[in-house]
Amino acid sequence: MRADFLVPAEPASRAEARLNLFDRFLSDRLQRRLRPGRIGLELWDGSSPPGQPGAPVGQLVVRDRRALAGLVLNPDLYFGEVYMSGRVQVRGDFFGVIEGLSRLSTPTGPSPRERIALWTSRAADLGAARRNIQHHYDLGNDFYDLWLDSQLVYTCAYYPTAGATLEEAQVAKLDLVCRKLALRPGDRVIEAGCGWGALALHMARHYGATVRAFNISTEQIQFARERAAREGLTDRVEFIDEDYRNVAGRCDVFVSVGMLEHVGRSNFDALSAVIRRTLDRNTGRGLLHFIGRDRPRPLNAWIRRRIFPGAYPPSLTEVSQYVLEPADLSVVDVENLRPHYARTLADWRHRFEAAESHVSVQFGDAFYRAWRLYLAGSQAAFSTGWMQLFQIVFQPSGAPLLRWTRDGLYSD
Amino acid sequence: MRADFLVPAEPASRAEARLNLFDRFLSDRLQRRLRPGRIGLELWDGSSPPGQPGAPVGQLVVRDRRALAGLVLNPDLYFGEVYMSGRVQVRGDFFGVIEGLSRLSTPTGPSPRERIALWTSRAADLGAARRNIQHHYDLGNDFYDLWLDSQLVYTCAYYPTAGATLEEAQVAKLDLVCRKLALRPGDRVIEAGCGWGALALHMARHYGATVRAFNISTEQIQFARERAAREGLTDRVEFIDEDYRNVAGRCDVFVSVGMLEHVGRSNFDALSAVIRRTLDRNTGRGLLHFIGRDRPRPLNAWIRRRIFPGAYPPSLTEVSQYVLEPADLSVVDVENLRPHYARTLADWRHRFEAAESHVSVQFGDAFYRAWRLYLAGSQAAFSTGWMQLFQIVFQPSGAPLLRWTRDGLYSD
Repeated sequence: MRADFLVPAEPASRAEARLNLFDRFLSDRLQRRLRPGRIGLELWDGSSPPGQPGAPVGQLVVRDRRALAGLVLNPDLYFGEVYMSGRVQVRGDFFGVIEGLSRLSTPTGPSPRERIALWTSRAADLGAARRNIQHHYDLGNDFYDLWLDSQLVYTCAYYPTAGATLEEAQVAKLDLVCRKLALRPGDRVIEAGCGWGALALHMARHYGATVRAFNISTEQIQFARERAAREGLTDRVEFIDEDYRNVAGRCDVFVSVGMLEHVGRSNFDALSAVIRRTLDRNTGRGLLHFIGRDRPRPLNAWIRRRIFPGAYPPSLTEVSQYVLEPADLSVVDVENLRPHYARTLADWRHRFEAAESHVSVQFGDAFYRAWRLYLAGSQAAFSTGWMQLFQIVFQPSGAPLLRWTRDGLYSD
Repeated sequence: MRADFLVPAEPASRAEARLNLFDRFLSDRLQRRLRPGRIGLELWDGSSPPGQPGAPVGQLVVRDRRALAGLVLNPDLYFGEVYMSGRVQVRGDFFGVIEGLSRLSTPTGPSPRERIALWTSRAADLGAARRNIQHHYDLGNDFYDLWLDSQLVYTCAYYPTAGATLEEAQVAKLDLVCRKLALRPGDRVIEAGCGWGALALHMARHYGATVRAFNISTEQIQFARERAAREGLTDRVEFIDEDYRNVAGRCDVFVSVGMLEHVGRSNFDALSAVIRRTLDRNTGRGLLHFIGRDRPRPLNAWIRRRIFPGAYPPSLTEVSQYVLEPADLSVVDVENLRPHYARTLADWRHRFEAAESHVSVQFGDAFYRAWRLYLAGSQAAFSTGWMQLFQIVFQPSGAPLLRWTRDGLYSD
């Protein structure tokens, strides 16, 4: 993680502490923007600009002039930066404030700044892809063990009922994926981006499938291999430390859960070619589970800088046009699980917050704040509709469809 | 219907009857193309070219030289023309031959000729749209009564079980649409393209909705109004003789079943604007049910000429990009009901064939053959995967999603 902006706020000198005219202009402007989200503002001298909301969900406490300027000029990037470095604090209902910030604008087309980001994004080559993935996923399995479920499933869960626990919901998700794919004993599965291996092992153990699972996170692969050995599944599950672009061989089932967001638009043709090359045109079917958008729009600038370098959640149009169509695939089923991801992220965040002291000791306070903000911001993105979670089931064009109706999927 | 090509085959003169070298060249070529579909060929002199398939599903009996040339040069257009006019007959398993013809090529990208058709297709203005619709739908309600279900539902049915009848499956489809939309008493519904009114009346009668239903087929609207009056539903269902582009007012539910195919690509922006303008952004949800494609490709040339002028079944990408995205809509659910349309068309065709004498007396033999071919060809298009049937459920971006899981949709 880069060091700039990680410097904690210094105690303001007397001269700095006094608000000048420009400070007042900027803070008035910021307070007006925040008001519809019922978010108040407090400045480094302890004062608040006029127009505080009644019954606020919370306040942003701005500790210095630079932080104020950042929040006004480019909040998408600098809110994360100044919150992470402690130059802005959140007082009151933390998630309420973050969700309030999300609601200040609506998820329509990209802003001019985001358009530039879309034009200038480059394709990640094999090396860049590996660095991007390791930036996030190689923070240590112990770290993820603090706040994920016991199987370390780091993708949207599926809560069959509102009362389901995270553990139950992750198992239900693994099962939903297998059922949507009508997985049968002996099916040859390719999994692109397998995380810590929970889905691959589930498919082998409960459905008798043979799985080759690919990942470029060294730590995850190692963990998954050890687990396969421990559970006696090495004859049916192979974990391969390789980029999805190098996947070879044929399969009956192509599945990818939570990888498409990391592929990037300019590599969609490569992914499409992989599916076309590997999927059996008679028996084949596949599922893509990914964070998506209603319209093309880059990921939040701060998340791209600090949390997920190179990530891009695509729109359904982009996936259909650049992944499915060129591979001659037919869409069988699409489900939007957006509220399930808001719930999953809430569960993760609560566990993460409970592990604050562990995380802070190991990685420092700025890291803890950054990740708390990332989890809360993502939860808000799903609760307010900035992001979607799509599961797409597909088959080769012209193949007999998997099932007559969905009934069997939802009743036993 | 235009008169050219409707001339029945004249008895071949002696000179014509004899095959010349060019006839042999063309028929050899055609037989080679037909062989993988297990379709034999018989020429006007009673001979068959070499290479007849073993265990053929049937034969094409070609009655003259011009028909042979048409079949070789542009089968997409001329097979329909020469079959309709009786210059080519089908011997053996009629549907087996038609499906065999569909399987001779695979549904990938458009051919060069089809690319030109895509480029040169123009937007239907209000007048052209009305002429196109009346060409097909104003053939007389008595005609459709011969072979549709008792409610005259002329769109893909939904067979809950393989043994369901057409009548049951059409009611199940109306219900599926209402359940996917989570229709509630008091909901204000706009239906764009309402056929003979079955869905609008079902929504009012069984779900207590208030429906404004639009259509530009004069005969259908008249029938629907009479039915509403007979069933005492005129206070809750209004049938409006108006183009979808002129729909005004607000609604909680926007639904369109089997109209999008007639809208045409160049009018997708107009449809999108209508949905954006009418759908309530808080309570709103909608459903599009349409014949689609895995990839952009024009409708078969003969079907466009004789059966559905101006029609275009869009790909999912096109609908997502040009209808849903510009209206700031979020995709909630997509289901591909392709096998249900193959089954629906089989049921329609069997009833239609049983009514042969009625249809021939009223409209002539050529009309009967044309419509039989259209029904069989469409059935084959769905059974072989040339066409898809998509139901898309959508909501305004950011609105709370309709339901937590699909369970309630499929179990009571």
